[in-house]
Amino acid sequence: MTTADVKACVFDVFGTLVDWRGGVAREAAAFLQSHGRSAQEADAFADAWRAQYQPAMQRVRSGERPFTKLDVLHRENLEVVLREFGIDAEQVEATELDDLNLAWHRLDPWPDTVDGLARLKSQYIIAPLSNGNVRLMIDMAKHGGLPWDAILGAEVAQAYKPSPEAYLRTAEILALSPAEVCMVAAHNSDLAAAQKCGLRTAFIARHHEHGASQTTDLQPEGNWDWVAGDLVDLAKQLGV
Amino acid sequence: MTTADVKACVFDVFGTLVDWRGGVAREAAAFLQSHGRSAQEADAFADAWRAQYQPAMQRVRSGERPFTKLDVLHRENLEVVLREFGIDAEQVEATELDDLNLAWHRLDPWPDTVDGLARLKSQYIIAPLSNGNVRLMIDMAKHGGLPWDAILGAEVAQAYKPSPEAYLRTAEILALSPAEVCMVAAHNSDLAAAQKCGLRTAFIARHHEHGASQTTDLQPEGNWDWVAGDLVDLAKQLGV
Repeated sequence: MTTADVKACVFDVFGTLVDWRGGVAREAAAFLQSHGRSAQEADAFADAWRAQYQPAMQRVRSGERPFTKLDVLHRENLEVVLREFGIDAEQVEATELDDLNLAWHRLDPWPDTVDGLARLKSQYIIAPLSNGNVRLMIDMAKHGGLPWDAILGAEVAQAYKPSPEAYLRTAEILALSPAEVCMVAAHNSDLAAAQKCGLRTAFIARHHEHGASQTTDLQPEGNWDWVAGDLVDLAKQLGV
Repeated sequence: MTTADVKACVFDVFGTLVDWRGGVAREAAAFLQSHGRSAQEADAFADAWRAQYQPAMQRVRSGERPFTKLDVLHRENLEVVLREFGIDAEQVEATELDDLNLAWHRLDPWPDTVDGLARLKSQYIIAPLSNGNVRLMIDMAKHGGLPWDAILGAEVAQAYKPSPEAYLRTAEILALSPAEVCMVAAHNSDLAAAQKCGLRTAFIARHHEHGASQTTDLQPEGNWDWVAGDLVDLAKQLGV
């Protein structure tokens, strides 16, 4: 695949660029301990919170509710998870839950992420195409040093991936044809949706996104334009 | 005025951060010469092009036409200006006009702009709140090294300044109250509209935006929260 036509790389973020499970578990451990629970439950807490992610967005995609940004969905989902863990949300200060909700704003990048993005930025427009909202992406970028050219994604497009509008409106805002935009993700389903919209695709396996016993997205499962070991490898394949 | 509550600085761009007149005139001079005209007309050409700016946006603000991004308005306005200068747009290659239209993407920052933005970025979220569209702002940032945290403004808000929606939707996307956002501009009218929406305001005089004989916006004309000599001075006043 020639890189000649690609003008922008857009990125999935949770899992592809940052370690959401480790970051959320770290803050959940402190929260659980301060409420008389074991820090050992933190990974399960992070997984349970993430398990509410797709169903919450599905209610927006289906039209059941108007577009609602991810910070709001995460905060609602947090109360669901607290119930699952037998913690009475009414007995916790709202400000403490609001702060725990911001764990998603403080996720750490994978070791190769910042270097890879900086390389790609030298030749391409780089922007997140995440379901995370703009403020979440800004805070995460300031926390981890992600050198974005712009913050795009679900909130700007007013549509959640994998809805086609999320990809197509992002290309339109960039004033590019879909084929001039490369979607970079660690999730085959994201790339499949992007490819259907005419975007180029790059797969990066993240074998530990879901912990040591991960079973999904270990391999490319489609005819992706590029498959890379990490973001620095992808930059090299894309000529920078 | 205390800076304690300000979390983000948002910026007017054309005139406040970059020299639109010098940049457009530079490219117009080359264009005019290649069409048998004098480079001496370049400043007047830039002024004539800019004179079409507010009327074109007013047709969007009034609801006469749906939101249309500035690149499209600039391209339409260019044909108006060519007629004013007696140049037959039909006789010019469309690609040449498209390229001249991108002069707005290649404007140079004022000498203090990049340093001032970098200082402010260390403590505040910084983003353009310009009527320029996202791609225009991305290209300009890459051209001039403007270190934005995010690209906001008219296209993301789907409203042109000074419509209140442009300011209020920007604060909403930042998940901030208007009083936590400081509008930075060299234009008193922009600050007046922002102040009406509850934003903080900072005025920076740019005495040569319109050339040596500029008569407008030489002084602050409202009760702005900060008045600074340039962007580095503003950063110092804001504690960085």
